[in-house]
Amino acid sequence: MYKEKLEQAVAILKEQDMDIWITLVRETIMNNDPILHFISKVDFTAVTAIMVMKSGKTVVLAGNNDAEGIKQTQLYDEIIVYNGNFKDALRELLNQNKVTKLAANYSIEDVASDGLSHGLFLMLQEVVNSIGAKIEIVSAAPIISKLRGNKTAVEKQLIIDAINTAEYIFQDARCYIKEGVSEQKIHQFFTDRLKHYGVQPSWQASQCPGVMVGPQSIPGHNAPTEIIACKGDVMDIDFGVLQNGYCSDLQRTYYILEDNEDSACEEVQKAFDTLKEAVRRAANFMRPGVTGEEADTIARSYVVSQGYPSWNYALGHQVGRMAHDGGMILAPKWDRYSSRQVEQPLEAGMVFTLEPGIATSRGYVGIEEMVYITDEGTEFLSTPQQEIFLLR
Amino acid sequence: MYKEKLEQAVAILKEQDMDIWITLVRETIMNNDPILHFISKVDFTAVTAIMVMKSGKTVVLAGNNDAEGIKQTQLYDEIIVYNGNFKDALRELLNQNKVTKLAANYSIEDVASDGLSHGLFLMLQEVVNSIGAKIEIVSAAPIISKLRGNKTAVEKQLIIDAINTAEYIFQDARCYIKEGVSEQKIHQFFTDRLKHYGVQPSWQASQCPGVMVGPQSIPGHNAPTEIIACKGDVMDIDFGVLQNGYCSDLQRTYYILEDNEDSACEEVQKAFDTLKEAVRRAANFMRPGVTGEEADTIARSYVVSQGYPSWNYALGHQVGRMAHDGGMILAPKWDRYSSRQVEQPLEAGMVFTLEPGIATSRGYVGIEEMVYITDEGTEFLSTPQQEIFLLR
Repeated sequence: MYKEKLEQAVAILKEQDMDIWITLVRETIMNNDPILHFISKVDFTAVTAIMVMKSGKTVVLAGNNDAEGIKQTQLYDEIIVYNGNFKDALRELLNQNKVTKLAANYSIEDVASDGLSHGLFLMLQEVVNSIGAKIEIVSAAPIISKLRGNKTAVEKQLIIDAINTAEYIFQDARCYIKEGVSEQKIHQFFTDRLKHYGVQPSWQASQCPGVMVGPQSIPGHNAPTEIIACKGDVMDIDFGVLQNGYCSDLQRTYYILEDNEDSACEEVQKAFDTLKEAVRRAANFMRPGVTGEEADTIARSYVVSQGYPSWNYALGHQVGRMAHDGGMILAPKWDRYSSRQVEQPLEAGMVFTLEPGIATSRGYVGIEEMVYITDEGTEFLSTPQQEIFLLR
Repeated sequence: MYKEKLEQAVAILKEQDMDIWITLVRETIMNNDPILHFISKVDFTAVTAIMVMKSGKTVVLAGNNDAEGIKQTQLYDEIIVYNGNFKDALRELLNQNKVTKLAANYSIEDVASDGLSHGLFLMLQEVVNSIGAKIEIVSAAPIISKLRGNKTAVEKQLIIDAINTAEYIFQDARCYIKEGVSEQKIHQFFTDRLKHYGVQPSWQASQCPGVMVGPQSIPGHNAPTEIIACKGDVMDIDFGVLQNGYCSDLQRTYYILEDNEDSACEEVQKAFDTLKEAVRRAANFMRPGVTGEEADTIARSYVVSQGYPSWNYALGHQVGRMAHDGGMILAPKWDRYSSRQVEQPLEAGMVFTLEPGIATSRGYVGIEEMVYITDEGTEFLSTPQQEIFLLR
């Protein structure tokens, strides 16, 4: 896969007419770059530059203690070992290759393209300034966004595997959750199932799953509380699995029936049906060329048209190595999202969540499905929740 | 411990006369700041600022989805939830507090103080520039370096625990390693023992331990090879344990006796004794006020005086949450180390490795011990290797 990703990178560089893309890192166990482990199998201690050239060549500038470990990966065309002075070695390489346009990993908008630390940026700038010829440093966000976004067949399958495991666990929970069980106990159940399947949570363990039971629980990224499930409560569980390096991120709605009920109360049922239809409409509309803002509007305007307030987060985000995989997003043009993030067109190979939500008097109702963008439209990677999981 | 570290931070700010220290992050699972989990128990998705003020107040500027999770940690005096526009909220806060000198997490020299991404630096700069009053943005390296370096009593004990486990495993290996065993098998043995003790490797699993068997093996950070241990080989194993969030980093020398030997050959024994004496001299010399360069010189000049070449890496680095914990270092004034890193004085509470090495015709001989700086001198946290581990 690393080799495949490096080849993808070369193709993207040619397409974007960029001379060189530099990933500049050091002590990567301590201070990571989110793109690093797409293009390197190993970590580094000394200052290291992984460089992809428009010519198709891949070169690593490495410290002497790291060099042998990099050679062992057999991923790159050339490994240049600098002895002591990284800056001189980089200057020479940029000079030799007559670089005039250099992409570096920084972005105000996209966290996934913002792995370059400010200190290393200052070092890069110093090297560039010391070269007579003019070199322009630009954001590598367009490169990284494509590289992360467009999943290879292998990556797609790994995501499906992570979804399947999460869905098993959501099903397992139907036999566990009942009246009297606390959010914390439900969280513990999911944690035990993760261990059982030998996988990790998709995000911080203490908040994965997020468990929102009944109307007192606060939606969002927080840890489960002592709130106890009662009859008539609806609950939203936000959960994902990290398996073989790839993530899932899903939400499922459960409802504890009152003694006299055979189905969820009308308020909850209507909210659920509205969300289901909003997800269906968005998925049906999405295809290459559609923007994230347009996709969000389809779902959001439907929910609002049914008399609900608009939820205060994005319709969806990308998923991959991370549950929140960065890059373009399905969201309104709100302050917190940049225009570039919401106005970019969808591309085949991207994976998104679709996750609208509605607060009811019985608790928060949430759905989160995952879709893959094909050449013509979308494909559900998750098995969409068709009915509320009813519990006795 | 988080509370203790936040209190330490306030004291350091007062001492350094800094108005505010800002740790600015987002999607911290994907894109971390190495100091974050000293001052926060949880991860964040939206752009978040953790701020320590000279007044002693700690404030977090948080997105609405993260706020409840932050409140649950009960670590901060105030949590301000911004709705949508982070920049406006930060501008207002800096204005209200009449900030004129702001420390941000960037450093050309010190990776541990360089957690601010360049994209978020640009965002911070934009906010600062939009304020009429002049605000100076300076590197938080002096703050972070103190905060990470000066271990609390709890931190020191956790490091000792991590050392003890590593030392058990080094001892376990004495019964396993023998003629005919490959580097890869030795690596596997250590990996199995890590699992047995329920701990993690201190760095990348594929390179922890580093196993250097005999003269063909290449020292440094790389994975074990198919090289097989023979009689008369010396081997250096570089290994550490991550346990309850803290690391150890040690090296031990093993030697496989020839049939007619009762001790290591003279060449290897002399190299080992030289390293042992170099470590003893350095540890004996180190105390608050001594610089890293001076400490390095003591050990290095002794090794060179015995007719050996100078090893091509630092005498030692700090250890803590990470095996390479950043900040000041015991090293010569080489290009790859900044003057600030080697000319700073040692301070009580710091933990360092001491790790000189000598290549012999039988393989690489290495020792790596760990010491703690006290008010008067040093204290060995590891049990120094007194004799080569001889194997039959």
